[in-house]
Amino acid sequence: MEKLRKFTESKAFQNTILIVIIINSIILGLQTSPAINDSIGQILGILDSVCLGIFIIEMLIKMVAYKFFGYFKSGWNWFDFIIIVTSVLSGLAVLSSIRILRVFRVFRSLKGLRGFKMISSLKPLQVIISAIGRSIPGISWTALLLFIIYYIFAIIGVTQFGAAFPEWFGDIPKAMYTLFQVMTLESWSMGISRPVMEVFSYAWAYFVPFVLISAFVMMNVVVGIVVNAISEVAEMNKKDEHEENGTGDIKAEIDAVREHLAKLEDMLAKQGK
Amino acid sequence: MEKLRKFTESKAFQNTILIVIIINSIILGLQTSPAINDSIGQILGILDSVCLGIFIIEMLIKMVAYKFFGYFKSGWNWFDFIIIVTSVLSGLAVLSSIRILRVFRVFRSLKGLRGFKMISSLKPLQVIISAIGRSIPGISWTALLLFIIYYIFAIIGVTQFGAAFPEWFGDIPKAMYTLFQVMTLESWSMGISRPVMEVFSYAWAYFVPFVLISAFVMMNVVVGIVVNAISEVAEMNKKDEHEENGTGDIKAEIDAVREHLAKLEDMLAKQGK
Amino acid sequence: MEKLRKFTESKAFQNTILIVIIINSIILGLQTSPAINDSIGQILGILDSVCLGIFIIEMLIKMVAYKFFGYFKSGWNWFDFIIIVTSVLSGLAVLSSIRILRVFRVFRSLKGLRGFKMISSLKPLQVIISAIGRSIPGISWTALLLFIIYYIFAIIGVTQFGAAFPEWFGDIPKAMYTLFQVMTLESWSMGISRPVMEVFSYAWAYFVPFVLISAFVMMNVVVGIVVNAISEVAEMNKKDEHEENGTGDIKAEIDAVREHLAKLEDMLAKQGK
Amino acid sequence: MEKLRKFTESKAFQNTILIVIIINSIILGLQTSPAINDSIGQILGILDSVCLGIFIIEMLIKMVAYKFFGYFKSGWNWFDFIIIVTSVLSGLAVLSSIRILRVFRVFRSLKGLRGFKMISSLKPLQVIISAIGRSIPGISWTALLLFIIYYIFAIIGVTQFGAAFPEWFGDIPKAMYTLFQVMTLESWSMGISRPVMEVFSYAWAYFVPFVLISAFVMMNVVVGIVVNAISEVAEMNKKDEHEENGTGDIKAEIDAVREHLAKLEDMLAKQGK
Repeated sequence: MEKLRKFTESKAFQNTILIVIIINSIILGLQTSPAINDSIGQILGILDSVCLGIFIIEMLIKMVAYKFFGYFKSGWNWFDFIIIVTSVLSGLAVLSSIRILRVFRVFRSLKGLRGFKMISSLKPLQVIISAIGRSIPGISWTALLLFIIYYIFAIIGVTQFGAAFPEWFGDIPKAMYTLFQVMTLESWSMGISRPVMEVFSYAWAYFVPFVLISAFVMMNVVVGIVVNAISEVAEMNKKDEHEENGTGDIKAEIDAVREHLAKLEDMLAKQGK
Repeated sequence: MEKLRKFTESKAFQNTILIVIIINSIILGLQTSPAINDSIGQILGILDSVCLGIFIIEMLIKMVAYKFFGYFKSGWNWFDFIIIVTSVLSGLAVLSSIRILRVFRVFRSLKGLRGFKMISSLKPLQVIISAIGRSIPGISWTALLLFIIYYIFAIIGVTQFGAAFPEWFGDIPKAMYTLFQVMTLESWSMGISRPVMEVFSYAWAYFVPFVLISAFVMMNVVVGIVVNAISEVAEMNKKDEHEENGTGDIKAEIDAVREHLAKLEDMLAKQGK
Repeated sequence: MEKLRKFTESKAFQNTILIVIIINSIILGLQTSPAINDSIGQILGILDSVCLGIFIIEMLIKMVAYKFFGYFKSGWNWFDFIIIVTSVLSGLAVLSSIRILRVFRVFRSLKGLRGFKMISSLKPLQVIISAIGRSIPGISWTALLLFIIYYIFAIIGVTQFGAAFPEWFGDIPKAMYTLFQVMTLESWSMGISRPVMEVFSYAWAYFVPFVLISAFVMMNVVVGIVVNAISEVAEMNKKDEHEENGTGDIKAEIDAVREHLAKLEDMLAKQGK
Repeated sequence: MEKLRKFTESKAFQNTILIVIIINSIILGLQTSPAINDSIGQILGILDSVCLGIFIIEMLIKMVAYKFFGYFKSGWNWFDFIIIVTSVLSGLAVLSSIRILRVFRVFRSLKGLRGFKMISSLKPLQVIISAIGRSIPGISWTALLLFIIYYIFAIIGVTQFGAAFPEWFGDIPKAMYTLFQVMTLESWSMGISRPVMEVFSYAWAYFVPFVLISAFVMMNVVVGIVVNAISEVAEMNKKDEHEENGTGDIKAEIDAVREHLAKLEDMLAKQGK
């Protein structure tokens, strides 16, 4: 068990899996081309199955090594598990509707992210990524605020413009999609706002504030992340420095001076007697 | 009175109000759908009235607790008050024009912001939000500068292009809306500038500088906020640190050393005698 | 002379001018509306002339106060001078082509910027603006780099696509305008790149790198300004702190300790004798 | 040899080359205009050849000065070498297809970048540029991540929408170009996503996440560069300060105090005897 765990964590094992992931990604890419599929489609299909087989074996080895339940403690293992299960299902259910199948199959390409995770376990990148990672809770708050703003504007949009522009403001989800488009500033004026203003001349009082508010909220997110990341990195630098020659050191030195003085005082006191 | 105030500030009271806000928001969302409105519209209407009733009671309790005038010292209470008054008016004025009514009703969805305020009274978020909040006076200056720039360009735009493009530059408000669109870079060239340039070939000398100037001013806003927020957070960190082991401490230690020395001197002086 | 200078720098004088600037700006705005111009156009014309007269008097007073040549040492005075001269010229040359006249007249609205300058002589704003101002030399370098990149891409664009798309790449200025549009990402793909790619299938190798390069250069500008502004503000904060209780102080304290010790040594040496 | 090297590094030599680069760039610009080419095309052609000749001589001198292999140690020399070789080839191969020729010729305009390099060897610019330069390895990681994300979305896009929208998602390169356009937010909704959603109503679940993910990754790049540049500049400032009056100094002072004390002790000990 212990041995198996070490084996799964060895460079050789990880690199093999990484190469299989890369090969599998290339195969998935090639299979999108009808021309290539016609000529060497069968070979690609077999190679694809081989890759899937290797992934299954990798999963089984890890499950044994980490005693099944330990395996599911890692988010990335869940990620692998779901991809493999959907891949196998899509392979088995040859008879079911092909549409859904294709969607499932394509999930395998997400394995590439696992490959990136493996490569990227390096220092310089980690510092900033972890700093950004730790500022995500902060974003999630802003995401809630943004959702509330979206919801309010969606309700207003549907109530006001829903009847006249069913495609853009027909219901709440449609209005939210339109608001997302407006937030990205894509065709917000020529495409959406001006046509709406031709029917409801006051519509600028809906779109312009939304553009300003959503831009302000998004700016807050970015500023928050920048400030967090900077103060985090600054904190780390300060710690490094402290260990080298921090203010603590100076205090220790002064303490030594005081000890010296106390000794001197003692000596003088004795002489005085 | 004192008791009532504590009651309104209790977790239980606040959470109840929060839940009513969330329920009310969902109802407002459901009412936008004609299909749902046809089937369970009456129930929704009653629930909506119940929510409004709870909000009125909440307001009255707070008014009593804070002695009416104290209630209006908080901006959020004004916010609540206006929403409730408009909601009640829109309910009473069944006979008046329905258009306006709908607008009023929809304001209630703004209550969601109050809900967010309640949830978000948490530490990590507050630091950055307050930092950004304090940098808003700085933005308001830039907003004035931006308004002056808009006004100047709007006057030039109306004078030059107003006759040929009445929809975009017909009067000052229209020109300002168009300039806002140009500032967001939405279809500024293919949609506005190129058509104008076909009539007035020198129009690029109007649009390109405006794009550059407004982008520069906006960048200043962002840079200003980032710098402010960073220096504010740095300030806070420094204060924390000072309290732990600041330079002030070192001074105190050195003072102790000097006292020691003065004592020694005294002793020596006595011995010398 | 000295008195006159003080008079021009007095609050009362500056506020009067500020009010005239605001009134003049409102008049310029009203004059853009044909409806208003028809009814009270004559009154506006007279008020406009009065404002211009006050500006001329202001300029003459300042010229006397600063002995003519001293007046032209300030950039803002040049700014005033040019606006007034063009305004007067546009008033005199009643007979010349009206088109050019209107352009000149409209320059007066730029006076609003002077008004902003007067209002904004305040502390909090100044720090960041001056920080950004000092980082403009850095931008000017990037502007040169950007110009070279534009020039290179314009030459390539005209040579390759000029014949097929004369409107976008007909000559170097047209290509530069198109490249500016592409840099702002406005309709760069659907509007420009895709149509070009239908004729020259390799055109993506022209547009995509340009988008990436120009975005990278612009990002450098922003990062440069942010970093400069932050380090400038940090510098300022450090100076303030130094004056309060800097490390210099601690050195002085330690020096005092050493003096003490030297004295003690002397006393001991004397006793030893 | 040593002399020749100094000559190539002399101000006079560099400025001459810089002027030739500027003249050559202007000629290349003028040659794009058919009107100018008709009238003084021959003169421009001769001047162009003269400039090319000077560049060849410059290259040969440098090759001799740096003993051929030393010449190719600098990336900028490779840059010069390739530009000159392609220029000469395009001049020799008068008979081959003119299309390719023009592309080659135009590469010469890249010489302008060399000119910028020569001008920009200045202090203030360098600090930030070098800081950004050092953060590029960090970006290259994100570039890999972005490529993987593009690849995954491209495979999904081709599999799902390829048949219905061959122009946008026909094959992997086309899908990647479309995804790049979506990432820049250009017409992503009105131009691409809404038409696709009319056929595949679930398409928003493809485009909206892609917009969010790519925006998040790009934001990480920017934040990473900002944070890196700031901490780099802060590091540099700290070093400067340390050399002036660092904490190291204070330690030295305290050490001096302790030496003093040891001396005193000695004296007292002697007296005690």
